[in-house]
Amino acid sequence: MPRLVLIRHGQSSWNLENRFTGWWDVDVTELGIEEARAAGRLLAERGLDFDACFTSLQSRAIKTLNIVLEEMRRLWLPVEKDWHLNERHYGGLTGLNKAETIAKVGEEQVRIWRRSFDIPPPPMEEDSPFDLSADRRYAGIEVPRTESLKDTIARVLPYWEERIAPALRSGERVLISAHGNSLRALVKHLSHIPDDEITGLEIPTGQPIVYELDGDLNATDRYYLKDR
Amino acid sequence: MPRLVLIRHGQSSWNLENRFTGWWDVDVTELGIEEARAAGRLLAERGLDFDACFTSLQSRAIKTLNIVLEEMRRLWLPVEKDWHLNERHYGGLTGLNKAETIAKVGEEQVRIWRRSFDIPPPPMEEDSPFDLSADRRYAGIEVPRTESLKDTIARVLPYWEERIAPALRSGERVLISAHGNSLRALVKHLSHIPDDEITGLEIPTGQPIVYELDGDLNATDRYYLKDR
Repeated sequence: MPRLVLIRHGQSSWNLENRFTGWWDVDVTELGIEEARAAGRLLAERGLDFDACFTSLQSRAIKTLNIVLEEMRRLWLPVEKDWHLNERHYGGLTGLNKAETIAKVGEEQVRIWRRSFDIPPPPMEEDSPFDLSADRRYAGIEVPRTESLKDTIARVLPYWEERIAPALRSGERVLISAHGNSLRALVKHLSHIPDDEITGLEIPTGQPIVYELDGDLNATDRYYLKDR
Repeated sequence: MPRLVLIRHGQSSWNLENRFTGWWDVDVTELGIEEARAAGRLLAERGLDFDACFTSLQSRAIKTLNIVLEEMRRLWLPVEKDWHLNERHYGGLTGLNKAETIAKVGEEQVRIWRRSFDIPPPPMEEDSPFDLSADRRYAGIEVPRTESLKDTIARVLPYWEERIAPALRSGERVLISAHGNSLRALVKHLSHIPDDEITGLEIPTGQPIVYELDGDLNATDRYYLKDR
C-alpha cells in the first residue's frame, strides 16, 4: 500500500524572529539544520525509504530536503521542485513581526488573518520590498498578492492530483518537504479535516509525518514518526 | 549564444587517500565542501547564472552541486540526476590505493589503466565489496564491471545529445556537476581533443570551466572562470 511522508522545513530565521514569511525566501537556522539532520537520521533508522521527492521553490524547504536525503544517503533520489508547494502567500503582512502587528491592528484582526479559512490578509503593495513578482524563479506564473488558506489549498491540490498522486498510485514511496500551510492543504485533503478545524492544526518543523494510504489514496493511518 | 559551465566535484575522501574510486559513493571532504562553496561564490560574483543543472547519481557530485546552488541562492533551479554522468567505472581497481597498486603490478601497468584511451582495468569480481550491481539506485541499468575512457565517453555522449544539448539549443544556461572522466568525455567532444591527448588532460576539483558555444554547440571559447 502507498506510503507518504510529509516534512515541514526546519526552523527558519523568520520563524525565530516571529515574522510573517510566506513566499519570502529566508534560510533555515542552525537549529533548523539540526532538525533536518535529526529527521533524516530518524527516517533512516526506522527503515523508511523513498523513490520520489517533491518540494517547493523556497530555499528552506529545499535545503531541509537536501539535508534529510544526505543523512539517509539518498541524495541521488529524483527531486521535483514546484511553486505549487510554496508556503501560503502572506500578502501585506510579509516581513512584519507578529507581535508588532498585533500591537498595531489588534489581536483579533491578526487572529482572523492567521486562522480564518478564507479571509486573506491585505494584498502586498506594488512597491513592497518583499514583492517577488519579478523574481525569475516565478517567471511564467502569476505570483499571488495575498492568499487565504483556502486559496493555498486551491493551488496545492491540482498539483497533488497531477504530479504526486500518480507517483503514489504507480507504487512509488513519496517524500514531500514543504511548509506549514501547503502541508495543511495536504493533511486536510488526506484526513478529511473540516474547514474550521484545519486552521488550528499545527504542523511542527522537522517532524516527519507518515501517511499510510489505501489504493485510492485514502488515509488509513497518520502519525509522527517519532511517536512510533 | 549558449553558455555551459562544467564543475568537477570538490575533493573526495578517496581523492585524499589516493584510492581508485569510480562508481563507489564516497563523500566530499571538508576541503571539498570549501572548494564547492568557493566555486558557488565565484559564479555568483562573476554574474553567471543558470536555468538547468545536470549531475550524476553519485553523492560527491550532487553535494557539490547543492553547495554551489546554495551559495548562488539558486537552490530552486531544476536538477536532473543521471547515471550517464557517473565517474568512469574503475573495475577491479576500485578501492585500491594507487601507490599500493603500483607496488603490486608496476608503474607501467597502472599508467596504462589510468591513461590509455581504450584499455579498461580488469573487471570487478563478482564478490567484490565494491560491487554496486544490486544497488537500487541503478535498478534497470546494467552496471559496468569496468570501463575504459572510451567506454565512458560512449555512454556520456548519448546522454549529452538527448538531454543536455537540447536544453542549450533552447536557450537554457546549463551547469553540469560531474567527475574527472565524465567531464573529460564532454571536454573531448566540445573541444575536439584527440584520443591520445584527452587521457592526459587534468580537470581540477571545484574549478568552474566555462564553455562559450555557437548555435551548433561548437566551442568558441573555454576557460577556467578563476582566470578571467
